[in-house]
Amino acid sequence: MSPAPAPGRLHHLLQIEGLGRELLFQLLDTAESFLPVTQRAVKKVPLLRGKTVVNLFFEPSTRTRMTFELAAERLSADVFSLDVAHSSTKKGETLLDTLRNLEAMQMDLLVVRHPLSGAAAFFAAHAAPHVRVLNAGDGRHAHPTQALLDLFTIRRHRPDLGELRVAILGDVLHSRVARSQIAALRLAGVREIRVGGPRTLLPPALESLGVQVFDCVEQALADVDVIITLRLQQERMQGGHLPSTAEYFRRFGLTEQRLRRASPEAIVMHPGPINRGVEIASEVADGERSVILEQVSNGVAVRMAVMALALGAEPAPAEA
Amino acid sequence: MSPAPAPGRLHHLLQIEGLGRELLFQLLDTAESFLPVTQRAVKKVPLLRGKTVVNLFFEPSTRTRMTFELAAERLSADVFSLDVAHSSTKKGETLLDTLRNLEAMQMDLLVVRHPLSGAAAFFAAHAAPHVRVLNAGDGRHAHPTQALLDLFTIRRHRPDLGELRVAILGDVLHSRVARSQIAALRLAGVREIRVGGPRTLLPPALESLGVQVFDCVEQALADVDVIITLRLQQERMQGGHLPSTAEYFRRFGLTEQRLRRASPEAIVMHPGPINRGVEIASEVADGERSVILEQVSNGVAVRMAVMALALGAEPAPAEA
Amino acid sequence: MSPAPAPGRLHHLLQIEGLGRELLFQLLDTAESFLPVTQRAVKKVPLLRGKTVVNLFFEPSTRTRMTFELAAERLSADVFSLDVAHSSTKKGETLLDTLRNLEAMQMDLLVVRHPLSGAAAFFAAHAAPHVRVLNAGDGRHAHPTQALLDLFTIRRHRPDLGELRVAILGDVLHSRVARSQIAALRLAGVREIRVGGPRTLLPPALESLGVQVFDCVEQALADVDVIITLRLQQERMQGGHLPSTAEYFRRFGLTEQRLRRASPEAIVMHPGPINRGVEIASEVADGERSVILEQVSNGVAVRMAVMALALGAEPAPAEA
Repeated sequence: MSPAPAPGRLHHLLQIEGLGRELLFQLLDTAESFLPVTQRAVKKVPLLRGKTVVNLFFEPSTRTRMTFELAAERLSADVFSLDVAHSSTKKGETLLDTLRNLEAMQMDLLVVRHPLSGAAAFFAAHAAPHVRVLNAGDGRHAHPTQALLDLFTIRRHRPDLGELRVAILGDVLHSRVARSQIAALRLAGVREIRVGGPRTLLPPALESLGVQVFDCVEQALADVDVIITLRLQQERMQGGHLPSTAEYFRRFGLTEQRLRRASPEAIVMHPGPINRGVEIASEVADGERSVILEQVSNGVAVRMAVMALALGAEPAPAEA
Repeated sequence: MSPAPAPGRLHHLLQIEGLGRELLFQLLDTAESFLPVTQRAVKKVPLLRGKTVVNLFFEPSTRTRMTFELAAERLSADVFSLDVAHSSTKKGETLLDTLRNLEAMQMDLLVVRHPLSGAAAFFAAHAAPHVRVLNAGDGRHAHPTQALLDLFTIRRHRPDLGELRVAILGDVLHSRVARSQIAALRLAGVREIRVGGPRTLLPPALESLGVQVFDCVEQALADVDVIITLRLQQERMQGGHLPSTAEYFRRFGLTEQRLRRASPEAIVMHPGPINRGVEIASEVADGERSVILEQVSNGVAVRMAVMALALGAEPAPAEA
Repeated sequence: MSPAPAPGRLHHLLQIEGLGRELLFQLLDTAESFLPVTQRAVKKVPLLRGKTVVNLFFEPSTRTRMTFELAAERLSADVFSLDVAHSSTKKGETLLDTLRNLEAMQMDLLVVRHPLSGAAAFFAAHAAPHVRVLNAGDGRHAHPTQALLDLFTIRRHRPDLGELRVAILGDVLHSRVARSQIAALRLAGVREIRVGGPRTLLPPALESLGVQVFDCVEQALADVDVIITLRLQQERMQGGHLPSTAEYFRRFGLTEQRLRRASPEAIVMHPGPINRGVEIASEVADGERSVILEQVSNGVAVRMAVMALALGAEPAPAEA
């Protein structure tokens, strides 16, 4: 079992809730220091040289897995990505046995994605003292590095976080991304968090999270500084939650016209991959207010920061 | 969009056509300088350290993908190979969104293989200015690094390129390899290029490329210095192009007997993987005139040269 | 063809039989010297820098493949793992052509797992002089690195090898692991080797190997110092060899109660992945006498030693 971490130091990263404001900003500041590394000619620092990072993905994800791999490589760690669909877990091995075996192979950092909420916490609860666990998405629960990179991206455009109105649009009900974003925005002290989308896709008790709920997108967007559109999981259609993607776009999609409701300098975000013409119009996704690709770039720097701090490396990015 | 490259410098490598003779020979000379690197004890130079190379393969290919990976590793780059069949393109992401995302992750070099002709050019046309695109095979259009390694192999055996007669045998109609080989051989100024195979597998307007066409293999082989056999795609059988592989071998396969038609020092080539007893007899493939495995070795050095020049590295292979 | 290796030096590692006692202990001693490397902050030495290791796995195996990859990475080699189910062997390429092509790519070390007995020996028989082949499991024949890591683990707990009684329990008939273990234990000179399990899973001529055979597990366990439980392949059930896993556990599974038959300091081993409640009770697998996870850790050091010695590297593990 892991001992309780020293207060104010990053140990595992399982969710945003409970991180503490100081640590949140330390993560963002460290990511800021890594951003130039990802942009120079030699995109590498020797911080995690000789460390072993394992990506254990029980759900497929090219993008998230690749940014974690890139982050680890750019910190000079050795990375192993396990596609669990083809691994010995199919031979009936338990999650705990998988963890114990990876630990026995001297793994230092486990990045885990799993369809069940709580899977990352399970690994963290049972991890050896020197092992760190990062949640790369667990069920509907949390996706903390996504929320961190979103907040990082917002802060780079609008350092006046306390003044901001942020709208999150779409399938909040099923979204671990939205859950973590709301927690991060609250912890960072933004002025107002709004959520907008079809009633069937909004959880009942959202207001208790300090969030304003709108089922009219136009109202949700009024004068906001940041718009976060969520990916619509196509499989929701089959569950009877929604009529059709065309209908969804017509009523809830972020169009140029709807965007005019927001503040003139509002930025538009999306965790990707985007469904063009479903949750967002192509003109908006590719438009001048879109920072969607910046989010991807920032994601590498943010994941480098999380990995470095979790493993206790001194964040002094000299050239490798 | 990419700006027009400086004349005479390698930018993207999409096809042989348009490369220019000077650049063609610069590529071969650079490959020559990398060949010793691949043969010494420490097979590594630090030229592309901290660069990110992405292999984006929309068609399966162990051999080509692996030689690109090896080339990148031996230049000390970080390499990521994406098996696109399992990636988010299945979630409906467009090619352009895939490109933009990889760029946002600070990719430097994209190696792309795709079943559609023009796919590599599409990526190149939309790539960010600092990104380079290498075509690892697009539809029936081109496979330029294969043609370069073939020419490199020929030149190592016969530096008197202007004196050579070269025969390309087999399924020229469907072969991006043949198309690029013909372009490379012409640019290099070989004396004579011949093509031989079943009429149904020879494109109609081949003569316009400056190529002599034979449907009698024996005639095509008379006194040639270089024989390039092409892989017969088994799926051609179903299209009614060919009766059977046995019949193909009987009429068009490169046997010891047919080989005697060529010059006594003729070399035998094949892009691999070979179908023994279909386009080539085992005795010939394994015989003393075969340079098929040299082609594989040279392929790594040639791909190192292409990567290094495309990324503007100074080709001075000191030990890593 | 490979020349005969110098006596007493590791060339290929295909099986334990024929290794010689001196080389066996040199391997164990070298592994001992690598063990601290896998446990320090920077888990890397530069011994195999610029070498190319290829894992060619014709059978799926997450655990074995990963420990070979880790071992190679920690020796600073470049590693390529080929999932052969998706490679050009499906296009009809022969094993020999696969080998020749990997050699042409300047591979230094081939780690091969294959469902057919003798596959590794085939590769070794045809490998180029500078290439080394390691058997990572071939059919029912051998799994020598597993046997080495088992012996290494035993020796760390009980250096008095000549005094030890060892029991191997389970499906010996189908187990390449058991075959190699028996050879290693004999070569190391342990006092007594016993084998226990259902008659249908014990090969007929076991006694000729210098092994005592028991179909009563309780008798096999009496006063032993080391217990090795084997994984029960679930597919054996269908072959009529066994009634059910529950029945197997009841009659042959290693329980706390049965464990009491052994010496009070006996250690319990398993090559993994374990089937809890089939060949071993969870309390025993997780109990204080279990060294199952140590085996996994030791496996990395042992494979580093095998790779380093096979490639003739001086085993002086300075920091990379």
